[in-house]
Amino acid sequence: MGGGSWATALSKLLLQNCDSIIWYMRRDDRINDFKRLGHNPAYLSDVEFPIGRIDFRSDINAACTEADTLLMAMPSPYFKSHLAKLTADISDKNIVVATKGIVPDENEVISDYMVEYYGVDPSRIVVVSGPCHAEEVALGRLSYLTVACNDIELARKFTSMLDGKAMKTFVSTDVHGIEYAGVLKNIYAIASGMVHGMKAGDNYQAMVISNAIREMARFIEAISPGKRQICDSVYLGDLLVTSYSRFSRNHNFGAMIGRGYTVKAAMMEMEMVAEGYYGTKCIHEINRKYEVNMPLLDCVYRILYERCPVSLAFEKLSTELI
Amino acid sequence: MGGGSWATALSKLLLQNCDSIIWYMRRDDRINDFKRLGHNPAYLSDVEFPIGRIDFRSDINAACTEADTLLMAMPSPYFKSHLAKLTADISDKNIVVATKGIVPDENEVISDYMVEYYGVDPSRIVVVSGPCHAEEVALGRLSYLTVACNDIELARKFTSMLDGKAMKTFVSTDVHGIEYAGVLKNIYAIASGMVHGMKAGDNYQAMVISNAIREMARFIEAISPGKRQICDSVYLGDLLVTSYSRFSRNHNFGAMIGRGYTVKAAMMEMEMVAEGYYGTKCIHEINRKYEVNMPLLDCVYRILYERCPVSLAFEKLSTELI
Repeated sequence: MGGGSWATALSKLLLQNCDSIIWYMRRDDRINDFKRLGHNPAYLSDVEFPIGRIDFRSDINAACTEADTLLMAMPSPYFKSHLAKLTADISDKNIVVATKGIVPDENEVISDYMVEYYGVDPSRIVVVSGPCHAEEVALGRLSYLTVACNDIELARKFTSMLDGKAMKTFVSTDVHGIEYAGVLKNIYAIASGMVHGMKAGDNYQAMVISNAIREMARFIEAISPGKRQICDSVYLGDLLVTSYSRFSRNHNFGAMIGRGYTVKAAMMEMEMVAEGYYGTKCIHEINRKYEVNMPLLDCVYRILYERCPVSLAFEKLSTELI
Repeated sequence: MGGGSWATALSKLLLQNCDSIIWYMRRDDRINDFKRLGHNPAYLSDVEFPIGRIDFRSDINAACTEADTLLMAMPSPYFKSHLAKLTADISDKNIVVATKGIVPDENEVISDYMVEYYGVDPSRIVVVSGPCHAEEVALGRLSYLTVACNDIELARKFTSMLDGKAMKTFVSTDVHGIEYAGVLKNIYAIASGMVHGMKAGDNYQAMVISNAIREMARFIEAISPGKRQICDSVYLGDLLVTSYSRFSRNHNFGAMIGRGYTVKAAMMEMEMVAEGYYGTKCIHEINRKYEVNMPLLDCVYRILYERCPVSLAFEKLSTELI
């Protein structure tokens, strides 16, 4: 489900292990172009697909009724509007959450939203995450994903659909921790991009990112206490790839603001949505309850939502980094 | 002590807080050029110095006798040859170790070497480390250093000589852990450079670095058991800046090998010493005793010392990453 770059990369992986897939996309014109061209017209257009093995659907109810496993890879800001049309009962389906981010206005992660509004069994929710840019997966560069589910056997089952020469997988049961990590890393990638845009230097950027992983650990521990190794690739690796990579739209969004663009101008300039923009507001609101010490989140929040000048926000942050 | 870029950056910092310093450099011609030009002729030549406040010495014994605190910042491969001329008793001096690396042929970190061969009191040894490229410190970009000493008060005293508008400091008592982290990060920076040179992608690089910090944690815990937060800036931050930065000679050395240079050709091409080259051999030998699981170290060792082709070594590594 979804027509973006992550949906496209995951579909390519699945088609290496599955005979056929149903692919839900909202727009019929995109589907027609896809069929005609043999590739996604809008994203990762270098990647050729075996069109005959894809059952394209723009009707979300038909698509969801026929499938037993729903892989959700719509960008989180559009997540709710996609599902708004869904009337079919999906409470007995396996739900694979590949979307990273928080459901807008709901301030909850996708898994919680699916349980609450669609009656999905929590043990049937699988979260896919890792240090994984869609662009590189599509290029066939070796990548590693972590598949998390309360039911570890279901996680294992899904890894067998992703594994391949260029994709290795791990399993985990830390569904919530991994989902929140996927939200937080986009916020920190914006911060890292701002540092880059301000030309504050590699030393300072490393300082910010090493603070980010500790801030992430604190927040996740507050939300979902438990044993986890925050340096595992699904947490730290994912933070690194998003914070340092030129493929990261969150990093690039932050870099524009760091260079002096207003938030509005940076948003208009970018063609893709920087999910961390929404994530910042959501986590900031969630954290009102938990009151975790999050100077990096607060710094980004002030810049994005309170019109605080970048230099001023980072001046304060600089005294808070440890 | 030392005429390289790190010695130069640290001297600049010290001169912001101290009236005068004694600066030992081996070569008289360099000292003369320095005095004439007002800056180090060989490193960080953009940085101007108040020459009148520097007492240059090429006689290591005179320099060490007069000073009460010796700040050692010679590159580790030349560390022993510098000290070979030292006959003065320095057993009652404070020793500040800014050199990162292991003493060649000795397979021990600088602090242990100073205790063993120069009778220095372990509680007078201070280690300075952090995510800190000399080039950026010299440019006045905000950076953070950690100063470690068994005697935390001595660590605090030394931070007051470094602190400034663009330099913030922390204290620690993890002398050994921080010294070994400073050796290991150069090895992982070579690995990261190799990944970069091989164009293996950002996903894979993030995977390698998130494995590196865990490998570092395992090794340091074996060498010097104790409570430490491996995500603190002095461990993780320093690893990040060295692994990702274009200023890092270890990264650049690895990148050349990743692009297909032989080890010998890469060494000849580079004008600066890649300290991780020596560090790899030393840690590999030390680890014969500890037998810590270190697939990244082993991968770099095979390439640098056993003529294993890069692609083959990383193919093995890829199955070992977690």
